Amino acid sequence: MPDAKKASRNLPPGTLHAPAGAVRPENIQAILYTSERCQEGEFASLAKALDWGKGKGVLWLNINGLGNLDFLQALNRELKFHPLALEDTLHTTQRPKVDLYQDHLYVVVRMFEFQQRLSREQLSIFLADDVVVTVQERVGDCLESVRNRLREGSGQIRSQPAEYLLYGLLDAVVDSYFPLLEQIGEHIEALQERTLVDASKQTLSHIHTLRRDLLELRRATWPLRDALDSLVRGDHSRISAQTQLYLRDAYDHAIQVLDMTETYRELAGNLMDIYLSSLSNRMNEVMKVLTVISTIFIPLTFVAGIYGMNFEHMPELHWRWGYAGVWGVMLLVTVGMISYFRRKGWLGGGGKGA
Amino acid sequence: MPDAKKASRNLPPGTLHAPAGAVRPENIQAILYTSERCQEGEFASLAKALDWGKGKGVLWLNINGLGNLDFLQALNRELKFHPLALEDTLHTTQRPKVDLYQDHLYVVVRMFEFQQRLSREQLSIFLADDVVVTVQERVGDCLESVRNRLREGSGQIRSQPAEYLLYGLLDAVVDSYFPLLEQIGEHIEALQERTLVDASKQTLSHIHTLRRDLLELRRATWPLRDALDSLVRGDHSRISAQTQLYLRDAYDHAIQVLDMTETYRELAGNLMDIYLSSLSNRMNEVMKVLTVISTIFIPLTFVAGIYGMNFEHMPELHWRWGYAGVWGVMLLVTVGMISYFRRKGWLGGGGKGA
Amino acid sequence: MPDAKKASRNLPPGTLHAPAGAVRPENIQAILYTSERCQEGEFASLAKALDWGKGKGVLWLNINGLGNLDFLQALNRELKFHPLALEDTLHTTQRPKVDLYQDHLYVVVRMFEFQQRLSREQLSIFLADDVVVTVQERVGDCLESVRNRLREGSGQIRSQPAEYLLYGLLDAVVDSYFPLLEQIGEHIEALQERTLVDASKQTLSHIHTLRRDLLELRRATWPLRDALDSLVRGDHSRISAQTQLYLRDAYDHAIQVLDMTETYRELAGNLMDIYLSSLSNRMNEVMKVLTVISTIFIPLTFVAGIYGMNFEHMPELHWRWGYAGVWGVMLLVTVGMISYFRRKGWLGGGGKGA
Amino acid sequence: MPDAKKASRNLPPGTLHAPAGAVRPENIQAILYTSERCQEGEFASLAKALDWGKGKGVLWLNINGLGNLDFLQALNRELKFHPLALEDTLHTTQRPKVDLYQDHLYVVVRMFEFQQRLSREQLSIFLADDVVVTVQERVGDCLESVRNRLREGSGQIRSQPAEYLLYGLLDAVVDSYFPLLEQIGEHIEALQERTLVDASKQTLSHIHTLRRDLLELRRATWPLRDALDSLVRGDHSRISAQTQLYLRDAYDHAIQVLDMTETYRELAGNLMDIYLSSLSNRMNEVMKVLTVISTIFIPLTFVAGIYGMNFEHMPELHWRWGYAGVWGVMLLVTVGMISYFRRKGWLGGGGKGA
Amino acid sequence: MPDAKKASRNLPPGTLHAPAGAVRPENIQAILYTSERCQEGEFASLAKALDWGKGKGVLWLNINGLGNLDFLQALNRELKFHPLALEDTLHTTQRPKVDLYQDHLYVVVRMFEFQQRLSREQLSIFLADDVVVTVQERVGDCLESVRNRLREGSGQIRSQPAEYLLYGLLDAVVDSYFPLLEQIGEHIEALQERTLVDASKQTLSHIHTLRRDLLELRRATWPLRDALDSLVRGDHSRISAQTQLYLRDAYDHAIQVLDMTETYRELAGNLMDIYLSSLSNRMNEVMKVLTVISTIFIPLTFVAGIYGMNFEHMPELHWRWGYAGVWGVMLLVTVGMISYFRRKGWLGGGGKGA
Repeated sequence: MPDAKKASRNLPPGTLHAPAGAVRPENIQAILYTSERCQEGEFASLAKALDWGKGKGVLWLNINGLGNLDFLQALNRELKFHPLALEDTLHTTQRPKVDLYQDHLYVVVRMFEFQQRLSREQLSIFLADDVVVTVQERVGDCLESVRNRLREGSGQIRSQPAEYLLYGLLDAVVDSYFPLLEQIGEHIEALQERTLVDASKQTLSHIHTLRRDLLELRRATWPLRDALDSLVRGDHSRISAQTQLYLRDAYDHAIQVLDMTETYRELAGNLMDIYLSSLSNRMNEVMKVLTVISTIFIPLTFVAGIYGMNFEHMPELHWRWGYAGVWGVMLLVTVGMISYFRRKGWLGGGGKGA
Repeated sequence: MPDAKKASRNLPPGTLHAPAGAVRPENIQAILYTSERCQEGEFASLAKALDWGKGKGVLWLNINGLGNLDFLQALNRELKFHPLALEDTLHTTQRPKVDLYQDHLYVVVRMFEFQQRLSREQLSIFLADDVVVTVQERVGDCLESVRNRLREGSGQIRSQPAEYLLYGLLDAVVDSYFPLLEQIGEHIEALQERTLVDASKQTLSHIHTLRRDLLELRRATWPLRDALDSLVRGDHSRISAQTQLYLRDAYDHAIQVLDMTETYRELAGNLMDIYLSSLSNRMNEVMKVLTVISTIFIPLTFVAGIYGMNFEHMPELHWRWGYAGVWGVMLLVTVGMISYFRRKGWLGGGGKGA
Repeated sequence: MPDAKKASRNLPPGTLHAPAGAVRPENIQAILYTSERCQEGEFASLAKALDWGKGKGVLWLNINGLGNLDFLQALNRELKFHPLALEDTLHTTQRPKVDLYQDHLYVVVRMFEFQQRLSREQLSIFLADDVVVTVQERVGDCLESVRNRLREGSGQIRSQPAEYLLYGLLDAVVDSYFPLLEQIGEHIEALQERTLVDASKQTLSHIHTLRRDLLELRRATWPLRDALDSLVRGDHSRISAQTQLYLRDAYDHAIQVLDMTETYRELAGNLMDIYLSSLSNRMNEVMKVLTVISTIFIPLTFVAGIYGMNFEHMPELHWRWGYAGVWGVMLLVTVGMISYFRRKGWLGGGGKGA
Repeated sequence: MPDAKKASRNLPPGTLHAPAGAVRPENIQAILYTSERCQEGEFASLAKALDWGKGKGVLWLNINGLGNLDFLQALNRELKFHPLALEDTLHTTQRPKVDLYQDHLYVVVRMFEFQQRLSREQLSIFLADDVVVTVQERVGDCLESVRNRLREGSGQIRSQPAEYLLYGLLDAVVDSYFPLLEQIGEHIEALQERTLVDASKQTLSHIHTLRRDLLELRRATWPLRDALDSLVRGDHSRISAQTQLYLRDAYDHAIQVLDMTETYRELAGNLMDIYLSSLSNRMNEVMKVLTVISTIFIPLTFVAGIYGMNFEHMPELHWRWGYAGVWGVMLLVTVGMISYFRRKGWLGGGGKGA
Repeated sequence: MPDAKKASRNLPPGTLHAPAGAVRPENIQAILYTSERCQEGEFASLAKALDWGKGKGVLWLNINGLGNLDFLQALNRELKFHPLALEDTLHTTQRPKVDLYQDHLYVVVRMFEFQQRLSREQLSIFLADDVVVTVQERVGDCLESVRNRLREGSGQIRSQPAEYLLYGLLDAVVDSYFPLLEQIGEHIEALQERTLVDASKQTLSHIHTLRRDLLELRRATWPLRDALDSLVRGDHSRISAQTQLYLRDAYDHAIQVLDMTETYRELAGNLMDIYLSSLSNRMNEVMKVLTVISTIFIPLTFVAGIYGMNFEHMPELHWRWGYAGVWGVMLLVTVGMISYFRRKGWLGGGGKGA
């Protein structure tokens, strides 16, 4: 795969080259709608899809995979999409951005899923006059709610121009981050509980993975905010004032996402502090056990050693209650030590003392 | 609840959907005032409230809960408030912001309470020509002082236009942060005292909660500052120059709040440093006890071991004062060790030495 | 006191309310000067002071305390100072700032003293046409040098308009930070010495206090810089080009102060690192003592234990030089161990080895 | 070498002085192309190369080493390249930048290789009307893909003006960072695995080297981004709008590189955290072994010591099953201790417990 | 000295007051040059120097010390240099800056030397029409290369106006930072080596000093960059476009210096991490020795203790090979333990295991 990538890197700019292992879609999914009706279809080539729907309303074409270069080349041939934009579509490490070309607007964003670990998918959106084309890495996305609204005609989406569909898609992507962040928030809570009671290497590894994921998420949201901002500011003449109002709303949501991501990053950093103090606490506990045992038995052993000496003249050895007396002394020492440790709060083990 | 949220996320933008568990208000509280008088009333519908008061002075309507969608829909129907603004009112995770719509200004801020932990409430303010509408999450707020000034006619609030009421509300919210920050400041002081003497897991957990709360507070104050700034800079033509002067004052207060929040965040970060050194100090103390005890008794036990050997030719065993001599040597060793440790400052336990 | 503050917070904006425990001044100190002469006087009311001096030159009125509301109300009545500015004068938690009102300029700065801990005092300066009013929290300030220059007529201060006096006061305040910073610098040096040799809890507490103080100082200097910058940039038409040249000098000094404050903050952060490594070093030292003692005596005790066994057939016990031989072996072990530790640099205690 | 540098530093600005040990190239490599054909040649002097190719198409001259001052002086003599630009070419510590001179554009970037450690090479590019000159530190670069596209006429490069070649070279340099970053990414993964299992000094040294390399890489990419940005923004009138579109693509790639570099820097910082906790974990493990052994045997030794005492009246000594009983007690103590440690999870060594 | 400073602080602005202990120069060094010739002279007063050289070419006057106030007062009297600029010249804690006065330009920069520690010297440069005046704190500077170029007429310096001399001086100062940074870089390398093998308090103190020095250097380079930037941007009409081109070069060098300073600051911060892990490593090593010795001998001592008991019925004591058997058991235990430790990599001491 790295070789494939390197190979592609050495080609002239604008050359299309599918990434290794890319999903190869058979059909293009098309949705055509006007304020009155909404039709759906699947087509084996772009030309057929355009024949079917172009000029009859707003046409949304969706390609579920990067493995079929014909589709992408047709986008250039039939719709004049710029080769650089198509090349970016194929390189799935793009940062979210908005590029304005002469005939169309090109937007890249990222969709995420969180199942134990974060997995991502790049979504490219092209906006030409009355055609919107989306290209994804694989089947399955967070845009089903938009499709349903088109089918049911709920809201104003069907009575608006194509640019409103662009907004609808971006809004669906941004809104899909919220349940994700909720999941991550719960994961952080659980990890914090766990760190406090079990500072194992596995926990460390979990914290590390979490920090990587949040870094990844931040890398997607910062430029997303900038991209939405440039759309809202009206740098791109394709967006009408009314749609800008809606985009401002999506922009506000993106800022909320960013805000929460940064907050979670701080919390994950704090987790590391907690982990390190948990380690210290555990060491403390181990040391306390050693110290308590040693401090009690070392003096006792000394006393026993004393009366194990073989001197001829050791009067105590011949006393009637010598042995019992030694036991008494030892008991006293032990009780004294234990009460000393209890006063220091060293007894009770790791339960509450540490 | 996450399902409810997800559901609402998939609806068309501008659709109103009450959050799960929202308080359902029965009435709208209305205050109508001119420079001469001030009247109060409660109404079961927006239409009645507007009939009663619209056009007779400045009318302030307050809705104490998000559970009654009729009220919010009426705001759109009767006062032309924008659906996106109403949707934001229902999503209680908004960052503070100011949005200018064609017919009205929409402002979101957060109110806080600090009882052990921080709890927050979202306050939405709509400013139309001579009507101000506020929507809160539940009964109880920090705006009572504004109501009292309206009732008593103190200050100039009754003789000013509706925009001055907006200022008055924002000022009351910002000012309510100061006692909050004082409480947090005292909490930090107390936590610092405690960290120095008792570096337990519970303390760690308190520090962590404090850092979360301060993060939360900062997330509310940074955008609040920006929102007030945009009002002061006169981006919004609804605000007169004179009210801007007052808003500048509220803006200065918001900066003070932000400033103190950042300071407290640094202090809370320092607390973590103190916690970690307290842990280290305690470990040091444990180790010193172990070392002192071991270092004194291990050599003594060795001496006792020597004279416990069973060699035939051990002249000391037969000396008259051998046993007493050994005791003497042991005493000397002990005294020497103790004076060595005292010189090092290791004795005196955790009291002052650590 | 918090109640008093809360009470004041709930009043209408611009209401004057003295802080609890405020010093109550009896007189207003007045200095009247022209390029020819300089007169001083004390007056029990503002009206008298203005009668005496207004219009005859530049008049500087100084109020030493916030407890006498009559004085402040008179400022509004007689000189048209804005209620918001007077309210800020009474709230002693203002950040340094410059506010331009219609009739006057309002400047707030902070003065500091450092005796063990940092103590601060708020100084408010009002500049109207030919009247400068200063309000302090208590008697005693860093402005005596300005008064002396007025009395002696040294420099050009007496021949300049009132705005130059404003500059002179700001310059005196900024310059008073330099000896303060020198004291703090020396304090840091001393604390560093101490941390290296005595990493006690008291030292930790000193470091923490230092960091708080520097945070406080920074909170005063950042906005001071901005305030001076806005004066220099000529945002305020009251300041002539020539005085701006001088203010630029004060601005440069403020940047120097800020620069040193930030440097000291980094050094104080480094102190914490040093503290933590000192703790680690001390632990190391304790552990070395324990290890040296244990490692020497535990094997010796084992040897003694061997010959304390009661086996019937232990030939060594009957040898003539058995006992002496054991001593020899023990000596060899001891010497070997000591030379091993010496090679590792563990002997010599905490002096240089740690 | 430092002396050589110092010497050169003290010369008048614009004086050319080859760095010590610089590679001395014999020839200048020339490529001349039009949309129809592409020719290559090697020339012993700049004059000959210009005679051969100047004015007949776009001419790319490449100099593989800084040791031949004649070549550089000829650049000034024949093509009027500015002495300051030539001086920068010889100082191989330049930050990437774009300088616009009257007759030409001067661009400096850095090429990297990563074999265990990062090694860098400075590439200077001069763009005059239809001549592009590149100067490298040594033979071997990442520009071969550009040469191949010229030779084969693939893409549009041969039909574009000289500025497009500049873009092509910059694009090749930026794209060469991606495989580099992949290698570093794999190195980080490997290092993380290793840190978790073997926190040795060598690992620490590897982490440190990695952080230095990433610092180096960041120092190259930040200014590279700024340089490309200034080209894209059209500050330099030599670049046409169409080429700017392509440069914007290179700029996007540079931002991706920067983004990944910063991410790797964070990950490398996290590695240090992992290293420190691994150290702590290992200490914990050592302490546990000591504690388990001590805590089991110290009480047993005490019991043995008791019955080694020589009191006359020790009834247990004469019991028939005394000895066996002692063994029984000892076994009980041991089993109790072990089950206690097992409950605490201290047994199982460093494998999973730590 | 602080008193002296305080005294000076309380004087009117623009009052000249030599710092305590300032070097008192006897003469002013003068260099007069035109494109044809260059003359040098020393003069006891400014008036004589101006008589000799003013109006005959570019005149560079250099004053080597701040102790002779006559010289500085003459600068105000004869050349109309502004009192505030002269006051700044005497206060040697200025940040680098450029001030434009009516008749002249005033530039302050810092020169450094690094011998074990960093020592600094303030250099003030005044640029009037055809006179350049430099004031240093003491004899000895990094400007000798400029003097030599003037004497030898190398480069274009003699044929350029006075502003080019200003550039030459600034360039010489900036270039003098490079060997300094090389020295510091080598110092960091050496310190890193040392930290890895000897984490003593002395090393800690060296690291701390290094961090202070780098802080100091950064405080000099940040504002230097800004000062050069303001010269390059042409805020000051005294600088011609051609000289701006050269200043841009010096500006680029200043950015390089800043860049390396920041890099070194990061590396010095990393050193602290290495120091702390070295401490941890050493503690680990100490603990391992203790654990190995204890874990081997404590069980052996227990065994010896068993057979030191005085029970009547201990059959082993009477066995023929009992004693030898015990030795055998002990040997087995020892070998087992050692092989266990060897497997864990705890043996081999601090050499490679730690």
